[in-house]
Amino acid sequence: MTRGRRVVSIIGATGLVGSEIARVLFARRFPLSELRLFASGRNPETSADIAGNRFPILPFRLDEVTGSDICFLAAGGGFSKRYAQAIASRGVTVIDNSSAFRMEEDVPLVVPEVNPDDILKNRGIIANPNCSTIQMVVVLSPLHRCWRLRRVVVSTYQAVSGAGLQAGGELASQSEALIRGEVKPARVFPHPIAFNLIPHIGPFDDTGFTLEETKLMSETRKIMGEPTIDVVATAVRVPVFRGHSEAVHAEFDRPVNPVMARDILETSPGVDVVDDPGAALYPMPRSAAGRDVTYVGRLRRDPTCDRALCMWIVSDNLRKGAALNAVQIAERLR
Amino acid sequence: MTRGRRVVSIIGATGLVGSEIARVLFARRFPLSELRLFASGRNPETSADIAGNRFPILPFRLDEVTGSDICFLAAGGGFSKRYAQAIASRGVTVIDNSSAFRMEEDVPLVVPEVNPDDILKNRGIIANPNCSTIQMVVVLSPLHRCWRLRRVVVSTYQAVSGAGLQAGGELASQSEALIRGEVKPARVFPHPIAFNLIPHIGPFDDTGFTLEETKLMSETRKIMGEPTIDVVATAVRVPVFRGHSEAVHAEFDRPVNPVMARDILETSPGVDVVDDPGAALYPMPRSAAGRDVTYVGRLRRDPTCDRALCMWIVSDNLRKGAALNAVQIAERLR
Repeated sequence: MTRGRRVVSIIGATGLVGSEIARVLFARRFPLSELRLFASGRNPETSADIAGNRFPILPFRLDEVTGSDICFLAAGGGFSKRYAQAIASRGVTVIDNSSAFRMEEDVPLVVPEVNPDDILKNRGIIANPNCSTIQMVVVLSPLHRCWRLRRVVVSTYQAVSGAGLQAGGELASQSEALIRGEVKPARVFPHPIAFNLIPHIGPFDDTGFTLEETKLMSETRKIMGEPTIDVVATAVRVPVFRGHSEAVHAEFDRPVNPVMARDILETSPGVDVVDDPGAALYPMPRSAAGRDVTYVGRLRRDPTCDRALCMWIVSDNLRKGAALNAVQIAERLR
Repeated sequence: MTRGRRVVSIIGATGLVGSEIARVLFARRFPLSELRLFASGRNPETSADIAGNRFPILPFRLDEVTGSDICFLAAGGGFSKRYAQAIASRGVTVIDNSSAFRMEEDVPLVVPEVNPDDILKNRGIIANPNCSTIQMVVVLSPLHRCWRLRRVVVSTYQAVSGAGLQAGGELASQSEALIRGEVKPARVFPHPIAFNLIPHIGPFDDTGFTLEETKLMSETRKIMGEPTIDVVATAVRVPVFRGHSEAVHAEFDRPVNPVMARDILETSPGVDVVDDPGAALYPMPRSAAGRDVTYVGRLRRDPTCDRALCMWIVSDNLRKGAALNAVQIAERLR
């Protein structure tokens, strides 16, 4: 790599995650010597405004990425499967936002607050985990170090922005129409999402779980390096623009204490405790949108089991859930 | 009681639940000889249209309720505490929709599909359970008879109509404003609910749980007559007009089988199984609103525990969650 400053490419730069990566690079003053923005589609826009600068958007060509130190891939699993290896073989470190390589044995799956050292084991590709997994492990990992996590039952409340650029428009226009008494058809989601809930994120497998739910199970184990932690999830799309929320029931090996949990989390990196029920203070997607940290609140002991904690975790799915975590990985590449 | 036909009073008849009770009485052809509608407030509307008939709305007076066979109370806990005993002592059977008497030992708490015989034990007051509890026990009770329920972890996704008449308007007007980029202040809820989630339903207790969450725990035990079943809940308000949803993780004494669970539930009263993920069919509030049954789907075995089932339960909180259940209780009064 160029000493100090790096050449960075983003593929999928016009998407929700890709454009957010560009903004986060500037916001965090990432040491850029050059930023190359690529669209994955055939007819890209010609330029984009980022942090007050106009950048050209190039159609993707492997040769044009060559010479980069780091390449962020945010163009979907199909694109990653097709090009990630080729880009990495040209000496570019790939940070892949898709699920294509997450469970590959020689690909680190990294949340910098949890398993930063895994970054060093990469062979050219580092996988950025699933949004709902990232925010959960950031909170559970420090508690695990204290009490040993055994089992998690999690229900998610996931924002539409997790489904890409068109989803927000669909929620807004369907909502507007429904208030007028009209029904607009669903395009992005399998059913209308306005004032509705859809317990269906990603395809279903034979056992009745969705891919989003199995990701939460398998990725948590890999990131935390604990293959025996059990995670069982229900993933639900909710009519929220930005910010994923999770109701988490976490069972540990040893008796827990919510006051101590709060103390631990208050000094944990990337976590902000918002937990003052008397003042109606708890995390909400409305207050988490556009923020970097993961919020946790509603911390309480399960009255039926002294080894279990209930909590409510909220984070911006495009920031810590995607772009920010990817940039944090890049910051640790030396 | 009058032979066959009954004199019925509804107090709180202009509220969401009270007016729904009136509609359900007509829809189910309840044998009415007279229907008396009362408002609890000082300045009631003068009349209401129900099933095509115009009914006068009277200001509440104890004397005017006297002579009724059955009185539905849907005017809030404060009103019930003040008047329920007085009405019952006049020989009127009170079906109380509030939480005022639900945990009183000599007051039956009834879901007719689960504990119909408890109705006979009443001493003048029968309590109608909390909306989110009703839909959960309707589904869990038949499974309990097969495998013995031990423990439930439930996360709720509750519609705004659970908070009364003004809540729907607040959701609609806040949503409209937010799409235009404006923020309207919250009045009904502690925070804006449009495109947001609020993990706060009812007041908090010392242990950090809300009243809605502790109701789910205590009422489930009482209705099912099983004081050892553990229930731990997280209750969340979502931007949905009508229809409560629940992600339920239920652990039993014996190994479970999702195919058999589906068979059991398909023949259970008041339950409709909607569970064909391949065809994107599962319960949603959008399809449950205005319906009588409780929908269950996403039935699957916990891959980490062969005694546990995951499921997704949705029901109209004003129908089975309130008015319908109350009327079903009345239908069993002889």
